[in-house]
Amino acid sequence: MGMTITEKILAAHAGKATVEPGELIHAQLDAVLANDVTAPVSIKEFEAHNIEKVFDKERVIFVQDHFVPAKDIKSAEQAKIMRDFARKHELLNHFDVGEMGIEHCLLPEKGLVGPGDVVIGADSHTCTYGALGAFATGVGSTDLAAGMALGEAWFKVPETIKFDYDGVLPEDVTGKDLILHTIGDIGVDGALYQSMELTGTAIENLSMDGRMTMTNMAIEAGAKNGIIAPDKTTLAYIEDRAVRPFKVYASDNDAKYVREIKYDVEKLEPVVAFPHLPENTKPVSEAGHVEIDQVVIGSCTNGRIEDLRLAAKIFQGKKVHKNVRCIIFPGTQAIYKQAIKEGLMEIFIDAGVAVSTPTCGPCLGGHMGILAKGERALATTNRNFVGRMGHPESEVYLCGCNVAAASAIAGRIVHPREVE
Amino acid sequence: MGMTITEKILAAHAGKATVEPGELIHAQLDAVLANDVTAPVSIKEFEAHNIEKVFDKERVIFVQDHFVPAKDIKSAEQAKIMRDFARKHELLNHFDVGEMGIEHCLLPEKGLVGPGDVVIGADSHTCTYGALGAFATGVGSTDLAAGMALGEAWFKVPETIKFDYDGVLPEDVTGKDLILHTIGDIGVDGALYQSMELTGTAIENLSMDGRMTMTNMAIEAGAKNGIIAPDKTTLAYIEDRAVRPFKVYASDNDAKYVREIKYDVEKLEPVVAFPHLPENTKPVSEAGHVEIDQVVIGSCTNGRIEDLRLAAKIFQGKKVHKNVRCIIFPGTQAIYKQAIKEGLMEIFIDAGVAVSTPTCGPCLGGHMGILAKGERALATTNRNFVGRMGHPESEVYLCGCNVAAASAIAGRIVHPREVE
Repeated sequence: MGMTITEKILAAHAGKATVEPGELIHAQLDAVLANDVTAPVSIKEFEAHNIEKVFDKERVIFVQDHFVPAKDIKSAEQAKIMRDFARKHELLNHFDVGEMGIEHCLLPEKGLVGPGDVVIGADSHTCTYGALGAFATGVGSTDLAAGMALGEAWFKVPETIKFDYDGVLPEDVTGKDLILHTIGDIGVDGALYQSMELTGTAIENLSMDGRMTMTNMAIEAGAKNGIIAPDKTTLAYIEDRAVRPFKVYASDNDAKYVREIKYDVEKLEPVVAFPHLPENTKPVSEAGHVEIDQVVIGSCTNGRIEDLRLAAKIFQGKKVHKNVRCIIFPGTQAIYKQAIKEGLMEIFIDAGVAVSTPTCGPCLGGHMGILAKGERALATTNRNFVGRMGHPESEVYLCGCNVAAASAIAGRIVHPREVE
Repeated sequence: MGMTITEKILAAHAGKATVEPGELIHAQLDAVLANDVTAPVSIKEFEAHNIEKVFDKERVIFVQDHFVPAKDIKSAEQAKIMRDFARKHELLNHFDVGEMGIEHCLLPEKGLVGPGDVVIGADSHTCTYGALGAFATGVGSTDLAAGMALGEAWFKVPETIKFDYDGVLPEDVTGKDLILHTIGDIGVDGALYQSMELTGTAIENLSMDGRMTMTNMAIEAGAKNGIIAPDKTTLAYIEDRAVRPFKVYASDNDAKYVREIKYDVEKLEPVVAFPHLPENTKPVSEAGHVEIDQVVIGSCTNGRIEDLRLAAKIFQGKKVHKNVRCIIFPGTQAIYKQAIKEGLMEIFIDAGVAVSTPTCGPCLGGHMGILAKGERALATTNRNFVGRMGHPESEVYLCGCNVAAASAIAGRIVHPREVE
C-alpha cells in the first residue's frame, strides 16, 4: 500500500518504514517556531520544568512580529521575555525589530524550512510551509515548549484529502481565490484534522508565493496541514536558500485518500469571503454594493512580492478612495526592499496608501489599523471572525490582492476589471 | 518704541498698531490644528455648544497622526469621531491614513502655515511653525474648540528673549544640539510664557529643517512660541508651497527684549539630554558608558528629509548593533517617498532598521516602539519625561540624528566620529 507525501514525511521522522492514518507517532522536529504572542507562554512552561538548554540553537526560531514594534507596555514586556530568553540561550534565529518579518514569510525566505521537514509553530498559520513540501502545523504553547526542549513531538497521522485544481487560471484569479473557493466549498471544518494535499495543473503553474497563500489557509478549513509536493518551482525557490539539506517526497500513485475533490479552475472568478467565516464565499460579481472603510493588503497570507506587484499594478496612476484607509504590510524587510527597488512603494505612496514596516498588524486585531464600531474592512488576510480586526461590531471581508486594491480605489468591493 | 516680530504679528492680527508684552489681545487666526488625540475633545466641546459650522473649512486642519493606523479599538473610535466630523463639516484639510504625516512636518510641507500667520494647535509642538516666521502656539482642546468655531483666540502678548547663535556650526553639530544646549542652559522653565526669538549667523546658515527642529522645542523651555524672522531660506521654502498670501515681519532694531542671550556655537559639540528632563544636557563626549535598547529617529522634531539624510550617511554600509532596535519614522508621505528616491530607505533596511509609516509612534508613548520596564531609548524626539516612551521605569535620552544613528550602531551613546 502506498503512502501520501504527508505520511511519508511523518514516517521518516518517526523512524518507521510506514505509518497509517490515525496512528500516534513520535517524530523528530526540524524546526520549532514561536512569536511574541506565544513564545512568552512557551518560555514560562520551559522554565517551569527547569530545562537547561533548547534542543538546538539553530532550530528553535523566534520571530517578533505580532505586536512589535511594541504597541504598548504589555507587548513590550512580552517581547522582552522573548528577547532575554533568546540571548540567554544564544538562539541563532531570533528575528527582532529591524530584521523582522512576518514569520511565515520570513522562514521560507531565509531557507529555515524546506522540503521534507517536520515543523511545528505556536501559530495557526505554520501550515504555510506545506507549500515547500514540508509537514508543518500549528501547536499550542505547551507543546511548543516540549518541542523547544526535546526537538520531538507526538502526532496523530492525519488522513489526507486530495484536491485537484485542473486547468489554466483565468485572468484575475489568484491562489487566494482557489483556497477561498475551496474553503467555501468544504467549509471551515471541511478538512478537520486532515491533510489537504493540493495538486493539479493549476498548482503546477502557480508560483511559490501563490502556493504559500494556499497552504497558509489550510487551517481555515480545519486541516492539520496543507501540502504541495515539491517540483521544479519549489526547487528553484529553495535550492539557494536552504540552510540544511532537504529531502523531496511525493505521494505514491496508490496512496490512499479519504476523499478526492476536483475543481475546474477555468470556471472560477475572484472570490470574497463575507463576515464572519472564511467559508462565506461569493464570486466578487455577486458581492453586491458593499462600501468599505479600510483595505489591508499583506499578512502571512498575501504579503509577498507577487502580492505587492499585483496590488501595485492596479494602484498605478490611481488613488485610494477618499473614504478608505488602505494599509500595506510587506511580509519581510527583503520584500520591502524589493518593493522599493521595483518602484512599487512609490506607486503605493502616490496612490495614498500607508506602508507599514513588516508586522502582522491588524490581521489579528494587533495594531496598525484596528477597526472602530461599525467599520468594515476588506483584507487579504486569513480570518474574518467576529471582532478579528477590532470592535466586535466591525466586519472583515477576505479576498486576493487585486480585488483588495481595486476595491480600495472604488470605495466598495469590486472586481478588478471595474477600475481598469 | 519698536516691536519684536512676535509683537508685530500679534498686533496685526488684533487689528492694533502696537501691542505691549502682558497685554491681553483678541486675535484673528490663520489656522487651527487638531490631531486624533485632541480633536475628539474639541469636537465634543464644539458640539456641546450646538455650533453649526466651523469658521473656515480650509483653515480648520485635522491630522490623524498620534495613534493611527489605529493601535486599538479606543484609538480607532477616536479617529472615527474626527473623521465623521471632518466629513460632516466638509473640512478640506483632513489628513487621514495614507495621506498623513506628523502634523508639524505636514503643515509646513503643504504650505498650510506661512510667515506672519497666527496659528493655534491642540498640540504642544505647534510652536514648530515659528521657523517660518509665524506666531504659532499650543492650546488646550477647549480653546481649540472656540478657535474652530470663531477663528479667533485670546492671547497675552509674551515678553521676548532674544537668542543670538553666533559663528559657524562645527561638523556634527546640528540644530537639535543648539536647542538642546539652549534648554540645558536656561532650563525647562527658562522661557516660561515668553517668546524665544532665534537669531544669529548660525541660524541664518541653518536650513528650514534645522530651524523647525529648533522652534519645535521652544515649548520644552516653557516658551509660548519660538520664532525666526523669515529670510531668503524661508522664502525659498514657502513661496511655491503657500496656499494663502503671507506677510513677512521682522523685529525692529529698537525692539525691547526681556533678556538677550548669546552663544558662541563654535565651542559646541553634539549634546545628549539625560533622563528625565530635556534640560539635563551633557556634551556627548561626557555621556559615559550608556548602553541602549532602542533608538528612535524621526518625530515632529527630527523626521524631515535632512534628518533622514544625516542618519543614512552614518548607517551607510553599517549595521544596527545586535542589542538595539532602531526605528525610523519619516515625517510625511512626501518625505518617505523622497527618502526612497534618494536610496536612504535601502540603506536603512540594509542596516537593519525598521522603517515606519509616518506617525508620531513611540515619541509620546503611543505605539510602534513602546519600552518595557528597565529599557533605555535614545531618541531624536522632544521629551524624555518619566514614562514618556513606555514603562515608568524606562528611560529616554534625547539627541540629534547623527548621534542617534551612530549610537544605534555602537549599542551605546557615542559621538558620531566613533563609528566612522
